[in-house]
Amino acid sequence: MKASLISVGTELLFGQITNTNAVYLSGQLQLLGIDVLYHYTVGDNPDRLRRVLRLAYEDCDLVITTGGLGPTQDDLTKEILTEELHDSLVLDRRALDAIEGFFKQVGRPMTENNKKQAYLPARAVIFRNAYGTAPGFALEDGGRIAICLPGPPREMKPMFENDARPFLASKSQSVIFYKLLRTFGLGESSLETALGDLIAAQTDPTLATYAKEGECSLRIASKRATEAEARAAVEETERAVLDRIGAYVFSDDDAELAQVVARRLIAEGIGFSCAESCTGGMFAAEMTDIPGISAVFERGIVAYSNRAKTEELGVSREILERYGAVSRECALAMAQGLAARTGSRLAIAVTGIAGPGGGTPEKPVGLTYIACVFDGAAHCEEIRMRGADRYRNRRHAVLSMLSMILRLVGAGEG
Amino acid sequence: MKASLISVGTELLFGQITNTNAVYLSGQLQLLGIDVLYHYTVGDNPDRLRRVLRLAYEDCDLVITTGGLGPTQDDLTKEILTEELHDSLVLDRRALDAIEGFFKQVGRPMTENNKKQAYLPARAVIFRNAYGTAPGFALEDGGRIAICLPGPPREMKPMFENDARPFLASKSQSVIFYKLLRTFGLGESSLETALGDLIAAQTDPTLATYAKEGECSLRIASKRATEAEARAAVEETERAVLDRIGAYVFSDDDAELAQVVARRLIAEGIGFSCAESCTGGMFAAEMTDIPGISAVFERGIVAYSNRAKTEELGVSREILERYGAVSRECALAMAQGLAARTGSRLAIAVTGIAGPGGGTPEKPVGLTYIACVFDGAAHCEEIRMRGADRYRNRRHAVLSMLSMILRLVGAGEG
Repeated sequence: MKASLISVGTELLFGQITNTNAVYLSGQLQLLGIDVLYHYTVGDNPDRLRRVLRLAYEDCDLVITTGGLGPTQDDLTKEILTEELHDSLVLDRRALDAIEGFFKQVGRPMTENNKKQAYLPARAVIFRNAYGTAPGFALEDGGRIAICLPGPPREMKPMFENDARPFLASKSQSVIFYKLLRTFGLGESSLETALGDLIAAQTDPTLATYAKEGECSLRIASKRATEAEARAAVEETERAVLDRIGAYVFSDDDAELAQVVARRLIAEGIGFSCAESCTGGMFAAEMTDIPGISAVFERGIVAYSNRAKTEELGVSREILERYGAVSRECALAMAQGLAARTGSRLAIAVTGIAGPGGGTPEKPVGLTYIACVFDGAAHCEEIRMRGADRYRNRRHAVLSMLSMILRLVGAGEG
Repeated sequence: MKASLISVGTELLFGQITNTNAVYLSGQLQLLGIDVLYHYTVGDNPDRLRRVLRLAYEDCDLVITTGGLGPTQDDLTKEILTEELHDSLVLDRRALDAIEGFFKQVGRPMTENNKKQAYLPARAVIFRNAYGTAPGFALEDGGRIAICLPGPPREMKPMFENDARPFLASKSQSVIFYKLLRTFGLGESSLETALGDLIAAQTDPTLATYAKEGECSLRIASKRATEAEARAAVEETERAVLDRIGAYVFSDDDAELAQVVARRLIAEGIGFSCAESCTGGMFAAEMTDIPGISAVFERGIVAYSNRAKTEELGVSREILERYGAVSRECALAMAQGLAARTGSRLAIAVTGIAGPGGGTPEKPVGLTYIACVFDGAAHCEEIRMRGADRYRNRRHAVLSMLSMILRLVGAGEG
């Protein structure tokens, strides 16, 4: 199947919002084995929308539209699509009930123009909107398929996942199943080297790597006649992958590293504290972004100055003078001082040179030490990042701290 | 002038990267008074690119392409555009020198296929690439204008600003000048109320408001025969705006609130420390993201637990028991304890209920107290955010802290 995406909305052409729907849907369609040939964006203009729609069907059999399903006179996607696919709009009683229910739930009066959203193509398969008032639908006409989704991503994505994806999968002779393994600590090229023969020999399942901010993900996908077959094939390959790089995999369910670590600390009831120099609070901020973390997060110290390292963490002047603030010795003293002071079962500390300035030949920008005291035992790691990108170095240090905790605490059952 | 944007690159259709070029260029063209009618995205496929290009010129006189200017065989944007606009490619000596110079500078050998990038349309105005090897250009043919830019945003944006924008401005009979005033503490609707009559009466300059994460921006733009006239008109309106809402404006040069505050603290040499409960390190992380902040940032305490508030900041048990951790009294005690302990000239503290859970009828989610001790005097503010969005509440608390500092320290000249 070949597809075009049409995003409808004048606000996209004004540069007010980024089109994230196109990237999401493209990725999803690729996983379904559907080729995306074009993205089109048009304003709320019926003639231009009609023109783009006709064009799209010249070399595609599937068109997915997002946006233009609202209650106002401007919103014409549904009307034009229905006309072009030779159908007509009829009042859908269930859609009307759902819209009325929505307004009752949020406690706002329903205006007359909202009724417009309950008129849907007679032949369409209707997709309920769990997060808004505009239903979506799929409509077919002589080998052409149109899928019409609302514009707001928080309405569009669940509708795609719950309704449009199964609809599209049902049009296909085969089923795709995939798993995304997220790794940290292996670069994309090391990952490819470790799995080179598997990647080279791939036909089905396929393996693809994606790099993102120090992390690297591996997607294992299989297309078979049934989901059970596809799943079995993916899981067999997954076992071979885990045999080689299992130590680097932190998630197989799309969870962020911080979430995986937080879940683990909360489940085990491990109280923790952190002391940050170069990351300046980023580690604490990331952990405290997770609801429920207060059960185990005791405190954080952002010890940016040497004086703070001494007063808050008991790092001796001797260490600071002899080894410097960015040293294995200082990181260990920070973690040990923090553990002694807080009594936390896990105390982690970081010190480094984030850049862009401040580096020397012996201690270049990107040099970072992470120390962790867990159940009384101290551990320390040295990291050397290349490049003077402050944000990237800080972000990498935070991920390294999370990864170290996971290794010390144990990834557990999850 | 009416424009279409064409983004070229198969990676966009695979859902691997978000098309941020389209949103950037749309916003920029709008400021130049150019209407954007369509965005198109096509892969590295010559036939489809040609098809979309012809289509674009059916109702637009300007086409801007991004991407497909690389050195490989796939990269064909330039070739097809040149053909369609009836020109031919010739070796541009200065472009070749620049490419050779680029490779010398980064210390990598120049491969033969990089030479391809020095072939440019004979009639084109060439745009130098300061951040990569692919030059861009503008080409005209019988009333049609094509502007060809590289795909990577860090190359594309400076080229647009330095070359393409002046080129487009020169095609226009008028000049646009604008200023963006960034405000905090006023909602979009309050801003519109405060400036309602100015907005209603606008013809030129125009006023437009934009809301983003608790901030609100106001764009004042004027289109006149000369830049001097446009600038004078904008500045006159700006004065009227500042008379009404000047206290809320923190930047007129696109700087973030944290940057404005950091610049001010660094310029005045005001040492500061922070104590965070609900924001959990976000304030410290944001400040320490700014290079050079170490000159004034002394330390941060993430006092998430009550024990940490007592041990690190000297908040008394009595305050915690009588008023609770989320109270004016606790915030003030945190700031005072921090000031006493660190000796920092400015000590700021925050405590609140970020959500999604943890609220009560008297202390709902979103209730936050910020206290600041500056030169010995203590100040406290209560903030009530509606909604249980943890990230939004935390982010708003950080912006409120920054805004409070700016008011206490004074916005100054810079």
